[in-house]
Amino acid sequence: MTTEKSKILVIGGTGYMGEFVVEASAKAGNPTFALVREASLSDHVKGKTVQRFKDLGVTILHGDLNDHESLVKAIKQVDVVISAVGSKQILDQTKIISAIKEAARFLPAEFGVDVERTSAVESAKTFFARKVQIRKAIEAERIPYTYIVSNCSAGFYLRTLVQFESSLISHTRDKVIIFGEDSVPPRDKVTILGDGIAKVVINKEEDTAAYRIRTVDDPRTLNKTLYIKPPKNTLSMNDMVTLWEKKIGKSLEKIHISEEQILKSIQVPIDVFKAINHSIFVKGDQTSFTIEPSYGVEASELYPDIKYITVDEYLSELV
Amino acid sequence: MTTEKSKILVIGGTGYMGEFVVEASAKAGNPTFALVREASLSDHVKGKTVQRFKDLGVTILHGDLNDHESLVKAIKQVDVVISAVGSKQILDQTKIISAIKEAARFLPAEFGVDVERTSAVESAKTFFARKVQIRKAIEAERIPYTYIVSNCSAGFYLRTLVQFESSLISHTRDKVIIFGEDSVPPRDKVTILGDGIAKVVINKEEDTAAYRIRTVDDPRTLNKTLYIKPPKNTLSMNDMVTLWEKKIGKSLEKIHISEEQILKSIQVPIDVFKAINHSIFVKGDQTSFTIEPSYGVEASELYPDIKYITVDEYLSELV
Repeated sequence: MTTEKSKILVIGGTGYMGEFVVEASAKAGNPTFALVREASLSDHVKGKTVQRFKDLGVTILHGDLNDHESLVKAIKQVDVVISAVGSKQILDQTKIISAIKEAARFLPAEFGVDVERTSAVESAKTFFARKVQIRKAIEAERIPYTYIVSNCSAGFYLRTLVQFESSLISHTRDKVIIFGEDSVPPRDKVTILGDGIAKVVINKEEDTAAYRIRTVDDPRTLNKTLYIKPPKNTLSMNDMVTLWEKKIGKSLEKIHISEEQILKSIQVPIDVFKAINHSIFVKGDQTSFTIEPSYGVEASELYPDIKYITVDEYLSELV
Repeated sequence: MTTEKSKILVIGGTGYMGEFVVEASAKAGNPTFALVREASLSDHVKGKTVQRFKDLGVTILHGDLNDHESLVKAIKQVDVVISAVGSKQILDQTKIISAIKEAARFLPAEFGVDVERTSAVESAKTFFARKVQIRKAIEAERIPYTYIVSNCSAGFYLRTLVQFESSLISHTRDKVIIFGEDSVPPRDKVTILGDGIAKVVINKEEDTAAYRIRTVDDPRTLNKTLYIKPPKNTLSMNDMVTLWEKKIGKSLEKIHISEEQILKSIQVPIDVFKAINHSIFVKGDQTSFTIEPSYGVEASELYPDIKYITVDEYLSELV
């Protein structure tokens, strides 16, 4: 509850019951808005009503039930929508419902894998489940949404060529970020999770942010998942090592950590970050499914004009 | 889709991923808002981030996930909410969901009986079903609502003491209104639908409008039906005739129309208004159920300070 009076929009305000509602609203001191058709202004009777509304301090908004944009725009200005449409327009109120729904799209905090399409073990499983829980709540409330699957962040993973020295491995992702900022890829030996063949996706933060923003005005991503999975940034750990070796003109010693070792190290102490990496780099969860148009769209396909930094370009800057 | 760029609110904007999102939004030309805790402003690192946001033209809104009012207020200003909260706050996003839901309450066009609690015959049945359909759509979309059951309008029913002369009976309610405005109650003979014992509710339009407006800022009526059913305005046709006879000091000749006659006259020609009156005055649908607190509240109980015009007072003015 706000302490201020709600802003009220009356739709159908020039009708018989609507007039009483508009007047009562204005007299109660609620900031009052009336949606009025252009045609009503030139109508003799309705024109007088509109003038009386203005005298009461009512804001006249020009629009129409059948003009979706005008409806959304009007609804966004207020807290409460009171319909006073006539009998013949009862079912047209579904248009108001649609417009109310459109008033706020929600992009929950998702900056990684598709939390509904992963084979992660604990404690990543529980970590992802919390994000799924938020998705379910959004859908249950029928709030318009877009989920963003931005996959691995370059500043996070690529800067060190997916190396997590003992000092960098921590229980929280935040700590990894802090330690990782001064890090560089190895020039001597490289640690590879599993056999290094699983395809992963690594994107630069600025690029995923640009895609995230672009999507908010796009009806094609309404109630969909936007996968940021550009072909050039979809590659295996082995691919990345090879790229890096070419750039520095030197072969690295490869140290593979077996899945068995990883699974053990995940549990004692419990390390959600390691469990996430197991899902990404060993299980290949970022690339193990096909994006179906029924629920998802790919960002670089949808927005070919956004020029993203490729893994290759990113690594070049680190040489 | 609006042609203007959506206004974007970023929650968690001073976090690692949040910063990229805020910047991308500002750079894309979307009016950008960042919800920032008061505490963050005095924080050395976050304070700098906030300053950078300001330099980018970002509007800083002071608030907090745990401050519901601040959240609702912030969300109302925008079209899209992008969450960038940290891992530990993932489940706290339900607070954002609640705030988004609160952003617009809808009062559909209902100015009569409780359309879900009536035993109306055709064509009123179909007429009410359309309103029920809108209720169901609102509930399916989880849009916050208040349904108003304002029962009979005085200007419509009481002005003529529920008399519909042949010239006044029409197929649309609009026409009845137009003819009714110059009408007065009878002083000679009165027509009574059925036996006249069913209790009905008659309220003045200005009063129901005042209740309707009062309810929009009241959490007690959120997702409830507000029944405008003041005890003094709940009475039978026979009661009203008696009241009127006392006022004019004269006994009227009573002409009862049997339910059988009414049911016949409803069908040829099809007359929705007569069918509605059958439901109200013969079946007593406005008073045939008890208002359960689970779904409903009564207006004169909830807002005792609103002084409503009683049927008795209204009739006095017509003498």
